[in-house]
Amino acid sequence: MEYGYGGKILRVDLSKGKITVDEPEDDFYHRYFGGSGFIGYFLVREVDPGVDPLGPKNKLVFAGGPLTGVPIAGSGRNSVGAKSPLTGGFGQAEVGGFWGGELGHTGYDAVIIEGKAETPVYLWIEDEKAEIKDARHLWGKTTLEVQKLIQKELGSTAIRIAQIGPAGENQVRYACILNDINHAAGRSGIGAVMGSKNLRAIAVRGHGKVPLADEKAVNAMAKALRDDCKENRGAVAMSQNGTAGGLGGFSMVGVLPTRNFQQGSFEGAEKLTGATINETILVKRGGCYACPIRCKPHVGVKGVYKVDPNYGGPEYETLGALGSSCGIDNLEAVALGNQQCSAYGMDTISVGVTIAFAMECFEKGILTEKDTGGLKLNFGNAEVMLELIELIARREAFGKVLAEGSARAARAIGKGAEEFANHVKGQEVPMHDPRNRHGLGLGYAISPTGADHCHNMYDTGYERRIGRNPSAMGILETIPAQELSPRKVRLQLYHSLWQHTLNCLVFCQFVPMTSDKMVELVSGITGWNTSLWEMMKVGERVINMGRALNVREGTTRADDFLPKRFFTPFNSGPLEGVAIKEAELAQAVETYYGMAGWDSEGRPTPAKLEELDIGWVAEAMK
Amino acid sequence: MEYGYGGKILRVDLSKGKITVDEPEDDFYHRYFGGSGFIGYFLVREVDPGVDPLGPKNKLVFAGGPLTGVPIAGSGRNSVGAKSPLTGGFGQAEVGGFWGGELGHTGYDAVIIEGKAETPVYLWIEDEKAEIKDARHLWGKTTLEVQKLIQKELGSTAIRIAQIGPAGENQVRYACILNDINHAAGRSGIGAVMGSKNLRAIAVRGHGKVPLADEKAVNAMAKALRDDCKENRGAVAMSQNGTAGGLGGFSMVGVLPTRNFQQGSFEGAEKLTGATINETILVKRGGCYACPIRCKPHVGVKGVYKVDPNYGGPEYETLGALGSSCGIDNLEAVALGNQQCSAYGMDTISVGVTIAFAMECFEKGILTEKDTGGLKLNFGNAEVMLELIELIARREAFGKVLAEGSARAARAIGKGAEEFANHVKGQEVPMHDPRNRHGLGLGYAISPTGADHCHNMYDTGYERRIGRNPSAMGILETIPAQELSPRKVRLQLYHSLWQHTLNCLVFCQFVPMTSDKMVELVSGITGWNTSLWEMMKVGERVINMGRALNVREGTTRADDFLPKRFFTPFNSGPLEGVAIKEAELAQAVETYYGMAGWDSEGRPTPAKLEELDIGWVAEAMK
Repeated sequence: MEYGYGGKILRVDLSKGKITVDEPEDDFYHRYFGGSGFIGYFLVREVDPGVDPLGPKNKLVFAGGPLTGVPIAGSGRNSVGAKSPLTGGFGQAEVGGFWGGELGHTGYDAVIIEGKAETPVYLWIEDEKAEIKDARHLWGKTTLEVQKLIQKELGSTAIRIAQIGPAGENQVRYACILNDINHAAGRSGIGAVMGSKNLRAIAVRGHGKVPLADEKAVNAMAKALRDDCKENRGAVAMSQNGTAGGLGGFSMVGVLPTRNFQQGSFEGAEKLTGATINETILVKRGGCYACPIRCKPHVGVKGVYKVDPNYGGPEYETLGALGSSCGIDNLEAVALGNQQCSAYGMDTISVGVTIAFAMECFEKGILTEKDTGGLKLNFGNAEVMLELIELIARREAFGKVLAEGSARAARAIGKGAEEFANHVKGQEVPMHDPRNRHGLGLGYAISPTGADHCHNMYDTGYERRIGRNPSAMGILETIPAQELSPRKVRLQLYHSLWQHTLNCLVFCQFVPMTSDKMVELVSGITGWNTSLWEMMKVGERVINMGRALNVREGTTRADDFLPKRFFTPFNSGPLEGVAIKEAELAQAVETYYGMAGWDSEGRPTPAKLEELDIGWVAEAMK
Repeated sequence: MEYGYGGKILRVDLSKGKITVDEPEDDFYHRYFGGSGFIGYFLVREVDPGVDPLGPKNKLVFAGGPLTGVPIAGSGRNSVGAKSPLTGGFGQAEVGGFWGGELGHTGYDAVIIEGKAETPVYLWIEDEKAEIKDARHLWGKTTLEVQKLIQKELGSTAIRIAQIGPAGENQVRYACILNDINHAAGRSGIGAVMGSKNLRAIAVRGHGKVPLADEKAVNAMAKALRDDCKENRGAVAMSQNGTAGGLGGFSMVGVLPTRNFQQGSFEGAEKLTGATINETILVKRGGCYACPIRCKPHVGVKGVYKVDPNYGGPEYETLGALGSSCGIDNLEAVALGNQQCSAYGMDTISVGVTIAFAMECFEKGILTEKDTGGLKLNFGNAEVMLELIELIARREAFGKVLAEGSARAARAIGKGAEEFANHVKGQEVPMHDPRNRHGLGLGYAISPTGADHCHNMYDTGYERRIGRNPSAMGILETIPAQELSPRKVRLQLYHSLWQHTLNCLVFCQFVPMTSDKMVELVSGITGWNTSLWEMMKVGERVINMGRALNVREGTTRADDFLPKRFFTPFNSGPLEGVAIKEAELAQAVETYYGMAGWDSEGRPTPAKLEELDIGWVAEAMK
């Protein structure tokens, strides 16, 4: 069988204006697959210890994987990574839309951005050709404006664009990168890294087809998966209500982050649900490359809170962060906040959680109008939320403080503000309260990217059977969500191995793909006679590369922890009295280290790295 | 899908004469599969720390696995295990023939023997019925005699018998258990354990059929595998020349253990090869249940060295141990030695290596005729080899010393004899010189059963691609056989994981089964949606249970080592100058500990055991 995947990686040195092509060996692809695997590899191997995340020596990696560009549901994603300006360590985010698939059609498996352009530029990739182009005329403009300008300049609306907005230009520490202006690679502040390089956008057009080792088998699997998407309960719910479908239920069971995680139920939740969006502001549903689920809302609002459907619409994370977390139940205002975050390029989770933090500080008297430039930062104040988005993106007035992220802002504010900053390692906690799912809490504490829900969502009731494949992982028991025993640690570890593997395959979590089918699919595409065992090792490599990078950059055992809030029981609602026990978490962290093959300080041992066939990482850690 | 495997385990308490049936949950089967998995489970869980391996508190476990009783090539095996009288730790051996398949047809997945009968007995299992029967009239008789007597007594030659011989009755420490009088569960001295319980035999007849979750798929796989057996080069070679096929080549490249591992080439090798057997003494080929390979020679000799074809014929290990290791090139004498080991029930490897040890001591003047009762123990003396087999089996004269195994014999002899005793943890080294395969050397050093080739044979040129499945384990490089780097340690570990998994599936290593097909087959039989990942965890559980047992019984880091001989370079032959470096092995052992998740003393950590879902083992270690 021929090998169907891998061959070319584009390398762009913006300082020298030089573009080259790496042609890695098949071994490289087989060991790291793609996505986070590539990111871990290039960050640990090529980024020197101690470099400034926002300096020219950081590198920014855009990566697809073996499925990228293959027209199959769930494949239309890409990863972006860099040393994170939020955490100072392993930074990585995934994103949907159409840019990833388009990159797949060019024949490039990844793009590595190095150095810093003297003046703003963008990158234009058309099939094998790549060109650095002037972007001075684009600087300062919204993402929609820039998308239109680039497409016009290059002569086609079929061109797909990944870009930062003004917030990225201004190096807001949680600036994001947007595909097609409405799909965000939100986490880790990678947009700030792109801004620091004076790179506004990467425009891509590919006309090629990804070669498939077994085209017939892949096509059959693609068709079967399309059919599954129309029948699988979770996928159908996603098609109907999008990610916001669960919001009402979350509030009812008491896990919807409300007023900076002070409560878990929000009296205005009903106004923010997927069903409410469908009934009020929804214009149409959108989606990603090759995917029939179409979970993406496009919303339109006329009047005061004018919203352009081109910017998509608020996802669950955004509704929670800008809505309930800030005590705001005005859907139109939240939709506008979402649009502005897309227009300026900021992660809505970090924006919302940072504003909610400031609101709590304000209500507790730690911040006053004197600090905020006259803004009344009370929970529920939609106008102030919207105003702060503008100020943060421009790094103006009080926005300058918050643009640094909640961890740095809290240190700057002082007076005990740190107690109310809900982040891990500098990354703000997403809209899943770990008090209800202790395994998730451990995941936040230990994840290489800080508080990140993308590879940590294991717990009863969410994804009982890892890899959606009963028994393939030998999981035979259902463990209460509010338990943090060694057996829970094991399931959290196994789950995160699989999720990291999906992040190397750069595959969507919403598509009803089982681990056994994934083995078949990857074999069909690549021609590798792979196995779930090998795949899990790929995921484990990422966890270890991320960890190694963090350790090298100074992460210690003390950083593998949760904000105080989650040790504090809810004082009302359905989960009244529920919290994580600090000592239990500390024990679970220690157990995780042991299970992961790390030493008592959480450092991967040389033997463990050798076991994973990445012995070179031990050298790079020194 | 229905579950096709698991349900009943027979438990026989010989002290009380009581027979009961365990009905474990599906979880038990899923976690441990069968074979070594069951043995590890019952030994760690049920055998108290510090019990005498030859006392009534030891337990003897006969176990099949999910494939047992299913008519598919390679499935006709069973495992037998107990606390070993040779090593004092985890004892286990596999065996072919027809007994395992027959047990599968009774509906019992395993048989646990406890306690000790007051007078000799045998066990008779017919389908669900089981009965303890008097065996006083069988005691002291050869295995062939006993087989005939039991079959006559029970009225059918279709009855399959696993039994010990007089050596087992006499508790020779390396006594074995024989299926059908010519397939040996040779290693670990489990025959002595059976003898210590006054249990001479287990006779089995089953008329049932193993239920299959997906009968059609299993039948198709069975047929495909049968066809593969006729085409696969290795399998065809096995059919033609049996295990002895490689002997001549081994001598030529310099790895045929000769004169107690002093040399690697034997000038008389040509007289002992599979081809020579075929041309001279072969009567017919035999094999195991459902297997078309038929690798088993049945040989006949008339005249001085009279050999009855009913006893089969010498395998490679026997030809090496009784032949080249003792410097003997007389095939007929070796064939007779093999027959006598089968008639008395002794492991030919330990017999030959122990005699070879005595011969070297004799030639070096450590032993004299005074010690040996007048026997001239020179290398090449076939008569003395045959005489010693008789004496050892009867524990008479100098045989009494050697019946204790080479480690204990060397200690008893003193005068530096220990330097020439080639064993690890008390178990004699099999016929694969580790100087040529350093990974194998590490395997011997670290294996839970001591020097054992059954789960340690990884190295270049033998099984380059683990699980016969290129790339499924992510193995992408060929590492020189005489290297003991961390990457070699990794491959040795991965290989042994897979081999231990096969030992839980109780599957033959000679059948050309790939790991991916095994996943399909186990799924088809059991109805479990299993995966290679889960399977490898099952193998890892065994390694850890075996280790835990050994640690509890006193194994320390110092025991994970090789005999001095293998640090001594060959002084002639094709591998002149080649040896393992002591410091390299020590480093590799340490690396292995780290990779395996063990502490610096080689103890499985509680976290590692929890990761493997066998947290209870940590408790049992205390």
